[in-house]
Amino acid sequence: MVLNVLGKAMLIEAVLLLVPLLVGVSFGENSYLSFLIPMAGLFAVGTPLSFLKFRDKSIYAKEGFVIVALAWIVLSVVGCLPFIISGEIPGFFDAFFETVSGFTTTGASALDSVEFMSRSIMFWRILTHWLGGMGVLVFILAVLPSVGAGLMYVFRAESPGPSSGKLVGKITHTAQILYGIYMLLTALEALLLLVGGMPLYDAVLTAFSTAGTGGFGVHDGSIAYYGNVYFEMVIAVFMFLFGINFNIFYLVLTGNLLKALKSEELLVYVLMILTASVVIALNIMNSVGTFWGAMRYSFFQVNTVTSTTGFSTVDFAEWPALSKGILLFLTVIGASGGSTGGGMKVARLCILRHSASANIKRMIYPRSVVSVKFEGKTLSQETERGVLTYLILYIAIVCFCVLLLSLDPFADVFTNFSATLACISNVGPGVTKLVGPMASYAGYAWYSKLLLSMVMLAGRLEIFPMIILLAPHTWKKG
Amino acid sequence: MVLNVLGKAMLIEAVLLLVPLLVGVSFGENSYLSFLIPMAGLFAVGTPLSFLKFRDKSIYAKEGFVIVALAWIVLSVVGCLPFIISGEIPGFFDAFFETVSGFTTTGASALDSVEFMSRSIMFWRILTHWLGGMGVLVFILAVLPSVGAGLMYVFRAESPGPSSGKLVGKITHTAQILYGIYMLLTALEALLLLVGGMPLYDAVLTAFSTAGTGGFGVHDGSIAYYGNVYFEMVIAVFMFLFGINFNIFYLVLTGNLLKALKSEELLVYVLMILTASVVIALNIMNSVGTFWGAMRYSFFQVNTVTSTTGFSTVDFAEWPALSKGILLFLTVIGASGGSTGGGMKVARLCILRHSASANIKRMIYPRSVVSVKFEGKTLSQETERGVLTYLILYIAIVCFCVLLLSLDPFADVFTNFSATLACISNVGPGVTKLVGPMASYAGYAWYSKLLLSMVMLAGRLEIFPMIILLAPHTWKKG
Repeated sequence: MVLNVLGKAMLIEAVLLLVPLLVGVSFGENSYLSFLIPMAGLFAVGTPLSFLKFRDKSIYAKEGFVIVALAWIVLSVVGCLPFIISGEIPGFFDAFFETVSGFTTTGASALDSVEFMSRSIMFWRILTHWLGGMGVLVFILAVLPSVGAGLMYVFRAESPGPSSGKLVGKITHTAQILYGIYMLLTALEALLLLVGGMPLYDAVLTAFSTAGTGGFGVHDGSIAYYGNVYFEMVIAVFMFLFGINFNIFYLVLTGNLLKALKSEELLVYVLMILTASVVIALNIMNSVGTFWGAMRYSFFQVNTVTSTTGFSTVDFAEWPALSKGILLFLTVIGASGGSTGGGMKVARLCILRHSASANIKRMIYPRSVVSVKFEGKTLSQETERGVLTYLILYIAIVCFCVLLLSLDPFADVFTNFSATLACISNVGPGVTKLVGPMASYAGYAWYSKLLLSMVMLAGRLEIFPMIILLAPHTWKKG
Repeated sequence: MVLNVLGKAMLIEAVLLLVPLLVGVSFGENSYLSFLIPMAGLFAVGTPLSFLKFRDKSIYAKEGFVIVALAWIVLSVVGCLPFIISGEIPGFFDAFFETVSGFTTTGASALDSVEFMSRSIMFWRILTHWLGGMGVLVFILAVLPSVGAGLMYVFRAESPGPSSGKLVGKITHTAQILYGIYMLLTALEALLLLVGGMPLYDAVLTAFSTAGTGGFGVHDGSIAYYGNVYFEMVIAVFMFLFGINFNIFYLVLTGNLLKALKSEELLVYVLMILTASVVIALNIMNSVGTFWGAMRYSFFQVNTVTSTTGFSTVDFAEWPALSKGILLFLTVIGASGGSTGGGMKVARLCILRHSASANIKRMIYPRSVVSVKFEGKTLSQETERGVLTYLILYIAIVCFCVLLLSLDPFADVFTNFSATLACISNVGPGVTKLVGPMASYAGYAWYSKLLLSMVMLAGRLEIFPMIILLAPHTWKKG
């Protein structure tokens, strides 16, 4: 069963590898072998697997999580082959880090410079962001709700437990809507960038990178390379949009504008971005000169971190302590639930706040009945528990990762801390010089890169699948 | 009602101010006015307050928390007067910081050097640690259990809600036992230090400081001043002991040694200290020379941080990243519940782990009934909720404090982070140079010192009283 789904995922990846191959051909590049070899391998292994028969057609949360975790790992291992075969990223751990960073839409690079890359390999590198974004949409739609950890409160499958054929039908329909929104927004961004005079290749890849909230740039200087305010504003606005719960777009499209505007998560998300932008602008104003000049940088950087994209137009590792502190917290919070962005999610922040304030009320009035509400609905205990457990596991993973990274002589504690947060939230750049927006993760040892790759996967899959994959209970006979 | 208890607390403080006064007289110092003026003030205000009549004799959680929070603030404001009147710490915010740091048994100093102090003022400075430790014992005994947040699972008052006269009787008895253990251990440590050749004055104050897990030292170099292995080992062992749940001593004294040894919290506490000591010793071995030479430093420093005392025998701000990372996590975790130590407490760590693992089991087997156990007992939902809410509030306070400290140009983000953790856990020194064991908090601006004073109080009072004091619900008419 697990193998069958894996097999199908491999076949899909094989087909998708055709795209960069064709890009390479159209630019007259000689790189087709880099894609043909992994494609052949995927077909050879994936085809028999996808024909495997299985008895039990229902997927329980456990199997769902194991499938998802394994699929992302296997697809990343295969996805790094083009980099290795082409010789453009020769080391396995560098290539694996880069591919995981791509699929998880993190955007942290294992390379100091990327401009030497051939067009087809660069296309594949950034296409992984876009595919990762789609993968996440399916994941939060189909897998998370089964354990009450889903934050897409409207799309959410009503019946937890085994997911039956009927549910799959419902999910397929919703997935189509989501993908429609995703592709539309991507196309719109590419178009707006083209209109502003960006070359087609750059515009498409930048749109891919923004849509997945990834952050890989076509050039070494990220978006600062262009030095163009129009590009920066278009990208900032689209980063903002891709960090919104896709449910909001669905509501707007179906004419429920009022309901969309009443969303608590949207309100907090917008207020958070505006407040942070203004405070940072005031904080860096002295070095920039004017308030609006500072706003240009702060609005872009706040959106890049909140949406967990990771583009940059300035080296914020050089900003004062307050600005760096704010960016660090935004890294942890991240985007809205049900978006392609990463992080802990604004929805979870709201739920944690409501949960804490309900418990304080219970302490003050021990006899009153207090319920935890979010978006106007009373939360199930299951959802509240899911969020609290997420928080505990999140902290545990960050602590372990920071300690293990300390074994690597490359960086200090704070850099390791910032790098861990940037990876688990799938942002990419950290707030210190060594892993900042103008640096890369190239300096870390291979074992640190492997560890950070796993942390990116854990963050992208909302932690539970990776934990369940590793939990001893999963492998006991039930 | 609230004022009546406050008045009584003020009278107690007035009497206690006699002790440093007598110490001053015995050393022939001229400092009696520094103590007589605040004493007179306390009598003048406290006496009428303590005669106030009140109708309702029962204390609810809300009133209990408000009393505790106000009492610690008022006693600290008065307690800093001797420093100001004597002119030895002329600034109010410095003196307040020093006094709060004393009563909360933090041990962070607002002064770069303390050796100029007269003996009576120094005695008062360190006596606050010892008194703070006693205050905490009452607090965790009498106030916390009323909301299910108490972690002294055996002493714990069985009936939550209003605390009646009967309960007070029970608490008084238990408090006597706790104080007995506390005084016995303090005397034993002072004796052992005396035997080793430490001067009487130093031995008594060092024992006071250890007992409260405070950390103020009589000399600028803290315990490194003596350069004596025997002193270091005695102090390290007593720091270890004062970080143990006092319930364990009670069990041992009443002959339940086996039950005491089965304690999960004790096991985790001991394993944590041993593992951290060995790992740090291996990490710093190269610079020290031998493993046992390194163990001398690592065992002391691990105990100083875990018990949240804050003494030091070496500048651990200069240690490698791994060691600093471990010390930072031990800062957060802190000592056992029901000890005079601070931090999040080992008991909470265990409960968080059990809670998370129970929820993961629930996800894997959605139909099974899973309960959260600690120390062999199933936890009430109330206790589990209390711990989770504590975690949320803890994170929120740390985030706000780090951001607000960033407004002070004194330090970088990581120093602010380390300082905040050291204050909320009542450890004292942080792991960076600027606030490390060989530095002080003197460089922070007055508003940062005030903020950190509040954070120390919040940490010492297990967060809830300060939050409830500030919660709008508390001040609404019920």
